[in-house]
Amino acid sequence: MGRYVNFQDELKYRIDRIEEVIRKYLPPEEGFAKNMAEAMNYSMCAGGKRLRPLLLMETCRMFGGDLQTAEPFMAAMEMIHTHSLIHDDLPAIDNDDYRRGRLTTHKVYGEAMGVLSGVALLNYAYETMFRAFDLAPENPGIVKALRIMAHKTGLYGMLGGQSVDVENDGKPVSQEMLDYIYCHKTSALLEAAMMTGAVLAGADEEQTAVIEQAAAKIGLAFQIQDDILDVTSTSEELGKPVHSDEKNNKTTYVTLFGLEEASHQVEELSGEAIRLLDSLDQKNEFLTELIYYLISRRK
Amino acid sequence: MGRYVNFQDELKYRIDRIEEVIRKYLPPEEGFAKNMAEAMNYSMCAGGKRLRPLLLMETCRMFGGDLQTAEPFMAAMEMIHTHSLIHDDLPAIDNDDYRRGRLTTHKVYGEAMGVLSGVALLNYAYETMFRAFDLAPENPGIVKALRIMAHKTGLYGMLGGQSVDVENDGKPVSQEMLDYIYCHKTSALLEAAMMTGAVLAGADEEQTAVIEQAAAKIGLAFQIQDDILDVTSTSEELGKPVHSDEKNNKTTYVTLFGLEEASHQVEELSGEAIRLLDSLDQKNEFLTELIYYLISRRK
Repeated sequence: MGRYVNFQDELKYRIDRIEEVIRKYLPPEEGFAKNMAEAMNYSMCAGGKRLRPLLLMETCRMFGGDLQTAEPFMAAMEMIHTHSLIHDDLPAIDNDDYRRGRLTTHKVYGEAMGVLSGVALLNYAYETMFRAFDLAPENPGIVKALRIMAHKTGLYGMLGGQSVDVENDGKPVSQEMLDYIYCHKTSALLEAAMMTGAVLAGADEEQTAVIEQAAAKIGLAFQIQDDILDVTSTSEELGKPVHSDEKNNKTTYVTLFGLEEASHQVEELSGEAIRLLDSLDQKNEFLTELIYYLISRRK
Repeated sequence: MGRYVNFQDELKYRIDRIEEVIRKYLPPEEGFAKNMAEAMNYSMCAGGKRLRPLLLMETCRMFGGDLQTAEPFMAAMEMIHTHSLIHDDLPAIDNDDYRRGRLTTHKVYGEAMGVLSGVALLNYAYETMFRAFDLAPENPGIVKALRIMAHKTGLYGMLGGQSVDVENDGKPVSQEMLDYIYCHKTSALLEAAMMTGAVLAGADEEQTAVIEQAAAKIGLAFQIQDDILDVTSTSEELGKPVHSDEKNNKTTYVTLFGLEEASHQVEELSGEAIRLLDSLDQKNEFLTELIYYLISRRK
């Protein structure tokens, strides 16, 4: 670690740029449907790590792509992620009143608006991505990126993982099923982020496949780290209640393998992700450092 | 009326073709997320007029377009419409247990799956539309069609209309607001259908604008006819409870203008839609007849 000089400064600088991009692409709050735009923007501006747009931007940078063409995809990536959080918090799903210390969308705008503004945010992500055709109409990566994004978001990606997670709420699940849930609910959008960044920059199929594998491992490591923090962190550090998995009888990597083995797997998976990235001719040292940063995070 | 020979036979023939197209593009029910695919297909196969894919196909035919390229859009059109019905029926929105005589999706699969499978269907609509790039990679109408579809579905289209409708549930609304709701909640997807059919067939901006205006009038006429049927039809004819608007204190065209004036407006709007279509060089007599058919419907 620490091989990348001023990682924290660089991270802050890049997140600031992402915040600007997100603000640029938010829907205006006007007209009869003003409240819906407000509900969408409320959740988009509730903070968060902005990890997915960051991974998208850094993978695009790694392959020498034009970051401006990637901007609508960076904003859309965060809209897709945020839509899933709004729906996760709904009474019919996790029934959470707070997220990151603020009231959840449905608590502020009502349950019907929680459902509808979540959907509207997903749809607006597509509307936003289509704006890339104005920026670089001849870039064949745009269509590839759209297809990746839709596939990794939907039935065969995040939403499929979410549905299996919800169906097995409170039941013990096998490791096979837990892997399915983690690989889809969490990894799928990280794969979408990094693969989209790659294809927009012109990465070929083989390179994109390596990126997909690396992202899958980062996603799994990220999710196992979440399991670990739920046991080892404090609610002050985490900004949400701890020990919630135990309370909800959730099967996690910690309940299946114990803390030590789970931590070992996070390191293994991160190491594998870095080796995969190292196997490519294209380099981005910041991205490597970001992976180390993710596994050492305390929230 | 009756200028088109064998309209009913032709209508049946075309709906049969649409049913085939829809079946062809439904997601396979397999893997861990099998239940989600089942929930999506349950609602897609619950019947319905298939009006939106029909309008898409007939407008594409009118401009001499390739109907095969339009197929993914026809299937996607019905997915977007069906997703909105699944969410409309949710406890947090209209709380309906039955639609077209069958249990609603959330009654069969649970409320969480109702939310998630509705979203998954919207997302799958995009995944499906992107398949058009395989069929006709060089058709510049595909990107235009995608942008129309996203815009008319989202915050500035159907979803925006739905949000305003939900927010004003049970409250008296002005005619201005009622027009906003009808033009967005109902007309927006009919505009999407007809405009998409037109641009896929290579219609230019001016022609597409005429189609948009015609579709807006058809949508408004269709919605006012719904208001009328709620008062004049029987629940047997309609397949759902009648007099529901009165029970729910809904402002409608019938409560604002009375039955006679509302019927007059349906005829006026349909006439204007037909005159708009007649103003174009391209002709489709079946489409004209379909508009007459829609205003004379009893369900």
